[in-house]
Amino acid sequence: MKKIAMLGSGFIGRFYADSIEGQRSKDKIVSIYARKEENAKKFAADYKCQHWTTDMEEAIAHPDVDVVCIALPNYVHADAVMLCCKHKKAVVTTKPLGRTAAEALTMLRAVEEAGIFHGYLEDLVYAPKFLKAYESVKNGALGRILWAKSRETHPGPHSDWFWNIELAGGGCILDLGCHCIEITRSFIGKDIKPLEVMCWADTQVKPIDAEDHAIGLIKYENGAIAQFEVSWAFRGGMDLRDEVMGTEGTIWINNFLRTGMDMFTTGKGADYVAEKAESNTGWLFPVGDEVNDLGYNHMFTEMFNCIENGTEPRETFYDGYVVNAIIDAAYKSAKTKQWEPVQL
Amino acid sequence: MKKIAMLGSGFIGRFYADSIEGQRSKDKIVSIYARKEENAKKFAADYKCQHWTTDMEEAIAHPDVDVVCIALPNYVHADAVMLCCKHKKAVVTTKPLGRTAAEALTMLRAVEEAGIFHGYLEDLVYAPKFLKAYESVKNGALGRILWAKSRETHPGPHSDWFWNIELAGGGCILDLGCHCIEITRSFIGKDIKPLEVMCWADTQVKPIDAEDHAIGLIKYENGAIAQFEVSWAFRGGMDLRDEVMGTEGTIWINNFLRTGMDMFTTGKGADYVAEKAESNTGWLFPVGDEVNDLGYNHMFTEMFNCIENGTEPRETFYDGYVVNAIIDAAYKSAKTKQWEPVQL
Amino acid sequence: MKKIAMLGSGFIGRFYADSIEGQRSKDKIVSIYARKEENAKKFAADYKCQHWTTDMEEAIAHPDVDVVCIALPNYVHADAVMLCCKHKKAVVTTKPLGRTAAEALTMLRAVEEAGIFHGYLEDLVYAPKFLKAYESVKNGALGRILWAKSRETHPGPHSDWFWNIELAGGGCILDLGCHCIEITRSFIGKDIKPLEVMCWADTQVKPIDAEDHAIGLIKYENGAIAQFEVSWAFRGGMDLRDEVMGTEGTIWINNFLRTGMDMFTTGKGADYVAEKAESNTGWLFPVGDEVNDLGYNHMFTEMFNCIENGTEPRETFYDGYVVNAIIDAAYKSAKTKQWEPVQL
Amino acid sequence: MKKIAMLGSGFIGRFYADSIEGQRSKDKIVSIYARKEENAKKFAADYKCQHWTTDMEEAIAHPDVDVVCIALPNYVHADAVMLCCKHKKAVVTTKPLGRTAAEALTMLRAVEEAGIFHGYLEDLVYAPKFLKAYESVKNGALGRILWAKSRETHPGPHSDWFWNIELAGGGCILDLGCHCIEITRSFIGKDIKPLEVMCWADTQVKPIDAEDHAIGLIKYENGAIAQFEVSWAFRGGMDLRDEVMGTEGTIWINNFLRTGMDMFTTGKGADYVAEKAESNTGWLFPVGDEVNDLGYNHMFTEMFNCIENGTEPRETFYDGYVVNAIIDAAYKSAKTKQWEPVQL
Ligand SMILES: NC(=O)c1ccc[n+]([C@@H]2O[C@H](COP(=O)([O-])OP(=O)(O)OC[C@H]3O[C@@H](n4cnc5c(N)ncnc54)[C@H](O)[C@@H]3O)[C@@H](O)[C@H]2O)c1
Ligand SMILES: NC(=O)c1ccc[n+]([C@@H]2O[C@H](COP(=O)([O-])OP(=O)(O)OC[C@H]3O[C@@H](n4cnc5c(N)ncnc54)[C@H](O)[C@@H]3O)[C@@H](O)[C@H]2O)c1
Ligand SMILES: NC(=O)c1ccc[n+]([C@@H]2O[C@H](COP(=O)([O-])OP(=O)(O)OC[C@H]3O[C@@H](n4cnc5c(N)ncnc54)[C@H](O)[C@@H]3O)[C@@H](O)[C@H]2O)c1
Ligand SMILES: NC(=O)c1ccc[n+]([C@@H]2O[C@H](COP(=O)([O-])OP(=O)(O)OC[C@H]3O[C@@H](n4cnc5c(N)ncnc54)[C@H](O)[C@@H]3O)[C@@H](O)[C@H]2O)c1
Repeated sequence: MKKIAMLGSGFIGRFYADSIEGQRSKDKIVSIYARKEENAKKFAADYKCQHWTTDMEEAIAHPDVDVVCIALPNYVHADAVMLCCKHKKAVVTTKPLGRTAAEALTMLRAVEEAGIFHGYLEDLVYAPKFLKAYESVKNGALGRILWAKSRETHPGPHSDWFWNIELAGGGCILDLGCHCIEITRSFIGKDIKPLEVMCWADTQVKPIDAEDHAIGLIKYENGAIAQFEVSWAFRGGMDLRDEVMGTEGTIWINNFLRTGMDMFTTGKGADYVAEKAESNTGWLFPVGDEVNDLGYNHMFTEMFNCIENGTEPRETFYDGYVVNAIIDAAYKSAKTKQWEPVQL
Repeated sequence: MKKIAMLGSGFIGRFYADSIEGQRSKDKIVSIYARKEENAKKFAADYKCQHWTTDMEEAIAHPDVDVVCIALPNYVHADAVMLCCKHKKAVVTTKPLGRTAAEALTMLRAVEEAGIFHGYLEDLVYAPKFLKAYESVKNGALGRILWAKSRETHPGPHSDWFWNIELAGGGCILDLGCHCIEITRSFIGKDIKPLEVMCWADTQVKPIDAEDHAIGLIKYENGAIAQFEVSWAFRGGMDLRDEVMGTEGTIWINNFLRTGMDMFTTGKGADYVAEKAESNTGWLFPVGDEVNDLGYNHMFTEMFNCIENGTEPRETFYDGYVVNAIIDAAYKSAKTKQWEPVQL
Repeated sequence: MKKIAMLGSGFIGRFYADSIEGQRSKDKIVSIYARKEENAKKFAADYKCQHWTTDMEEAIAHPDVDVVCIALPNYVHADAVMLCCKHKKAVVTTKPLGRTAAEALTMLRAVEEAGIFHGYLEDLVYAPKFLKAYESVKNGALGRILWAKSRETHPGPHSDWFWNIELAGGGCILDLGCHCIEITRSFIGKDIKPLEVMCWADTQVKPIDAEDHAIGLIKYENGAIAQFEVSWAFRGGMDLRDEVMGTEGTIWINNFLRTGMDMFTTGKGADYVAEKAESNTGWLFPVGDEVNDLGYNHMFTEMFNCIENGTEPRETFYDGYVVNAIIDAAYKSAKTKQWEPVQL
Repeated sequence: MKKIAMLGSGFIGRFYADSIEGQRSKDKIVSIYARKEENAKKFAADYKCQHWTTDMEEAIAHPDVDVVCIALPNYVHADAVMLCCKHKKAVVTTKPLGRTAAEALTMLRAVEEAGIFHGYLEDLVYAPKFLKAYESVKNGALGRILWAKSRETHPGPHSDWFWNIELAGGGCILDLGCHCIEITRSFIGKDIKPLEVMCWADTQVKPIDAEDHAIGLIKYENGAIAQFEVSWAFRGGMDLRDEVMGTEGTIWINNFLRTGMDMFTTGKGADYVAEKAESNTGWLFPVGDEVNDLGYNHMFTEMFNCIENGTEPRETFYDGYVVNAIIDAAYKSAKTKQWEPVQL
């Protein structure tokens, strides 16, 4: 049984909580930290947490807490990690690890020095379809991997801080590209070095400083190529697709908009509201079990098992750091219009 | 925390165990019963069960056991249930409940008299896509339900006893139709009475007494119509699809062969073997997370929560009994070539 | 080159004209008959017909005319056919041939006596996907055919006469079932005798006398089973799907709503209107080339080639008659609730 | 009626002939040129051509010939065009126009000076799904176009000359990228100037000098971005997909592998052989009507209509030249690793 302090009661905090305490779980969120008292109280009530606080350190330091789960905006990740180091608490952090590779490296070094467990919550490499595909790739069903592409696009994020380039650290490359980069890196092989990145990025639609659309290529030392396509200007819902090409096979994964569930509704039947869709009438494509299908369940299972067994999880801060380094190169490339080396 | 005795170490017994003990579960299978010592021992080793036995009653009566999970062939369900009644243990049983409505009714009366908890393990009405669709139907997104169809077909079962009409109680109508009937009944409304059944059935391919292909219609008292299509002679894998038509909308669910995961492999890469597929090369359509996508996780979660909360689960022996009664009418109709009343 | 008289300037008349004169065709509609002068003139202008008339016989008798194409409501088919017999003109007729088998038989006998060419315009057995599938079935790729299902459902027809049971001759069984019956009969084999029919039909939604929803089964003498699902109460567009099961394979055809073209539009861009769809915003599923994909091109090509070569087309009045006979049995069965023999 | 000289009796020559003389066409191939007498004779017999020759000029100069259709390897396109100029015959040429922009420009200038009709046979912008999508884009259903992507990948070409970089002029960028470039350019708008290209290309699998895999980005002056993905190393058949993103909508087109026709066959039924697929058992995805669905019918219809009407077709040699110029920039970029300007 793990006892968790959740930091942040926003969108992903609740998603994480649904997963951690979903089904017949033996784990429990014992402390919730939020900036506003009302939010902390509300979360504590909803998830029956014994303790709530508006003081981050108090949640982390709470004696019942085994593991700290960071579900805060990007610009707060580093501070939260430092406090975990101070209190020697196992820590799992949402994506992206840092806003830059430098920030990520600081965090990585801190947790290593503190000797604490560190997990990077890249849920999409725990998505059931990814895991199934990954297994086939490892079995050799696709032969040598030539190319892996991941696409994540939607109509734009929900909270103000995402739109502030200082606080967020970037636009859709950082926000969505971090997923795509780790998915494709996993298919190609984490032991294979990413060499250089070419990236196009633009702010085509939104009134923001950061990019709302980008496409990037990452060359790996074995000649394989990774590709990411990200946007905050996509219309039609959330498009989450991966593709892999190998010398002996192909994999196509659709994680969201076409998963074998189609609904049409005139909307006259009732106040039906579809989650996250751009409309609530006409043809809609709900996902059966979002919390499972996007990988949260398998992710927390592995993280907590690893903490108990003293083993290393699939995704550590090192992976988050590599992802940040690739993103740094992508941002540089978007400016210099050159292939930029990945600095690790 | 629930402590379970598993009866049966075959195909579904292991599936159930994977679900019950999957992820970060607080539940545990403490005793396993199998007919053969080697199977009991093997299961006990695989799932770390503290106790194994080749005596069914011993497993049921074991003092640590809270709940008995029946994963035995159809002809042993009734005997197992009776022993649970005798020992006043909560019982959950795989489908179909009985081989006939008469057998099911005996079981239903026995558990009611014994005053024990009884759950009917119809996993497909706990499948995430079903749950999502069901919610929309209840919200009125489809208006008044006119028709619900469910199809389950595959190339035929794996164990000998399925092919013995005495032991199995029937062919694909009983084996697969029980799922389809409960799915469509749920969409139409469990409070709506099924009136009569028309069924075509034939043994088109397999060298057996029981039917290997059947199509049936069930008329409900509100004018809605349910349809099932079942076969043990389908080629291409396992086809699991549901459709619902209402005055204001439509739902199409594909649970297995087209769920947003497509793989092509020449097979030259390695000894890749796809589960349950008819081939292991060419285009394959794996399911991401079978144990979750087919509803096992949500089913056991609800069952065990209900036992703890003293509430009634979505599916009780009464539902199993209704399904058996509809199946009885279907078998009769296949012979008389008439619409046959559902006798409840 | 064929010179055609088109009878009827309504929905299907224009569809036929688009096909006959589409692309680089050598054929020409030389005369158009419509009841109202304005409609005849409009059609003549649109398709550059040299002759128009409000007198049906005049169009048929016109000396330039080689072939008469009947695109009139069901209750006028027989009269139009008789006039073709009188003037010894080759005739092709839209579906259904008659309103009843008796009416169809009269027409069949008349054309045979007159010794004129007669084609039955069942476009869906000329749809490219059907033709491709049919070829595979004939090649034996599916082994022995066990079951063939065809489904055609939409939200209801566009013209008043369809809703009048006298004029139309029936509801969706006659209107849509005729397609499904001929598709499935073709897969099973036209040389195999249909023996008996079981049909459920109901008027669930529309304020009409005829049925707006029906499901039927047709038993063939070789043990194969055909199934049709038809409705005028479906929501979401036009659902046109076929499925075939054989001992060695499976075919699934989607002719309309899922053909590899998905569009999402907020509708803010412009006055975009999608044809035949129930909405013009959200996710839409247009068909690339309706006139080709629904079989009209391949159908007229074969019909006119056969006239020129003096050969028999795939679909003659005899086929139309068989379809009507099966439909008669379906209507009878819907009333008697018995399997009814097909009377040929 | 058009009378055509076909130059080349290979793969695309026969495809073109099937389209030109398909269905009830008024057009006719009157002369066939092939290098080998046996091939010319065979083609003449198959398509009932009155004249065959192994002398290219003879076919072009033939007095009955109105239009010359070039279906020859890339390195012969220019020579053939020059002969058409000499004999003042309308000419339509398969893709790519030239092996380089310089070659294409020579051809463009020659036909303009000769004052002859010139059409560029880019069939995929005549594919029915493209035309439907294009219409929606023009109607504004997608708002302002932000991005257009086209993907064409397959396991590699069938004739030797493709593999010779001198004769072919390049690898999969030239062979397949020409399609993708014109598709995406059409969606973005042919009046919008392509500014610069970034391209990654590699020879990952095949033992050739040319690239067998490439990904490219093309920046347009209005800020829109085009993307192509091409490969001769894809496994699973021919993958032909387009995607468009606009401020108000999205379009996804699948032209080949997922078009609503799914077949499973054990292969035991008969000697079933699926065209162009990598296997002939398991799940197969045939296209209904290849010649129509890939745009050949609509393309020749427009070309020949334009010749008759004295109008300009959708695709002229100028378009072929622009495509070659973009490809030149792509090849340069693949070497310099820079964004390279499109030189027009
Ligand atoms: N699939 C995923 O892995 C996924 C999905 C969404 C978000 N995220 C990540 O989760 C993090 C949070 O995103 P979100 O969508 O939940 O955002 P959110 O805005 O919905 O929630 C953020 C929470 O943090 C609190 N907060 C804001 N500023 C704070 C500060 N300065 N100090 C302390 N607390 C503060 C807010 O009150 C809120 O409770 C981000 O890093 C984001 O990238 C991950
Ligand atoms: N989706 C589902 O809900 C689902 C799926 C498959 C099977 N089932 C049901 O589960 C039950 C078992 O099916 P299975 O596929 O696991 O079969 P199986 O043959 O794989 O396993 C049956 C197990 O019962 C044991 N057994 C056989 N005869 C016995 C007897 N006379 N007494 C005691 N034990 C005996 C066998 O040794 C074996 O361990 C059936 O009722 C079947 O309908 C349900
Ligand atoms: N896929 C198909 O094959 C298909 C599709 C639609 C309709 N149809 C068939 O086509 C026929 C016409 O249907 P539609 O949809 O075009 O109908 P419609 O109502 O659109 O057109 C019918 C035409 O017939 C004319 N008409 C009506 N009553 C007449 C009368 N008494 N005498 C002479 N002309 C008369 C009308 O003015 C109109 O021009 C029907 O038999 C229908 O079943 C076939
Ligand atoms: N979708 C399309 O538009 C499409 C598809 C395939 C090919 N193509 C194009 O069509 C052209 C031909 O390709 P293909 O696939 O038909 O090739 P192919 O090799 O199948 O056929 C080429 C034909 O040209 C003849 N030929 C070869 N060398 C010649 C020479 N030196 N002089 C005269 N004739 C010669 C060959 O005998 C053969 O008949 C190429 O330019 C190719 O890019 C277009």
